[in-house]
Amino acid sequence: MENCIFCKIASGEIPSATLYEDEDFRVILDLGPATKGHALILPKKHAANIAEMPDDLLGRAASVAKKVAVAMKEGLSCDGVNIVQNNGEAAGQTVFHFHMHIIPRYNGDNAGVTWTPGKLTDEMKEEILNAVKVK
Amino acid sequence: MENCIFCKIASGEIPSATLYEDEDFRVILDLGPATKGHALILPKKHAANIAEMPDDLLGRAASVAKKVAVAMKEGLSCDGVNIVQNNGEAAGQTVFHFHMHIIPRYNGDNAGVTWTPGKLTDEMKEEILNAVKVK
Repeated sequence: MENCIFCKIASGEIPSATLYEDEDFRVILDLGPATKGHALILPKKHAANIAEMPDDLLGRAASVAKKVAVAMKEGLSCDGVNIVQNNGEAAGQTVFHFHMHIIPRYNGDNAGVTWTPGKLTDEMKEEILNAVKVK
Repeated sequence: MENCIFCKIASGEIPSATLYEDEDFRVILDLGPATKGHALILPKKHAANIAEMPDDLLGRAASVAKKVAVAMKEGLSCDGVNIVQNNGEAAGQTVFHFHMHIIPRYNGDNAGVTWTPGKLTDEMKEEILNAVKVK
């Protein structure tokens, strides 16, 4: 897509620190890493978010995420890995080209990627089960 | 796997607030939700983390995540969706059965799921590119 920075990075028009590349994806190092090794999986074909990703491409993105997570564990000796995919500004998405964050985690790094658990009340449960219809 | 609570929930042995079910997955409401509608995708077959997930099942999990995210947007009128998959205690994983968090987000909910960006130095970049070999 014209004027999409991640399209330009994925295609190689804008250079990046590339960790991995195949026909469909480029995996780059995030310039504002949460931790050492934080990477982004970018599809070469533009999709704004997960809803716009074709299922087959999405499945291949998940396989790439697995490969990258395994390689991080081996190469960086990290203690864990977060995989985060944000959709919409309210979810923290800042570039509107689908991407997955692969964040190596190290014991005691205090990197965030967490939340405060609430409580699922019976009332809330009924309301959600009635409202959300997964097709 | 014996004594795995998510195996028991996924199989239906332990009841749960089920949003969706198919041959391979059960999607339940999280009892400690980050926001209203926070759900978990559980494969029925045990895998501790993404490294143990077969690629085909992982791809189908990603498709389920997409379906749930779309249904949340429609049913809950949320403004965004985070998809989070944690591997290892250092990454916040507390139940060692692969799962994906699908977290609807609402403008101004302050639900977290974020991090403080650092800076990718040239030195760090070289170190990581030399260390991480994605196969």
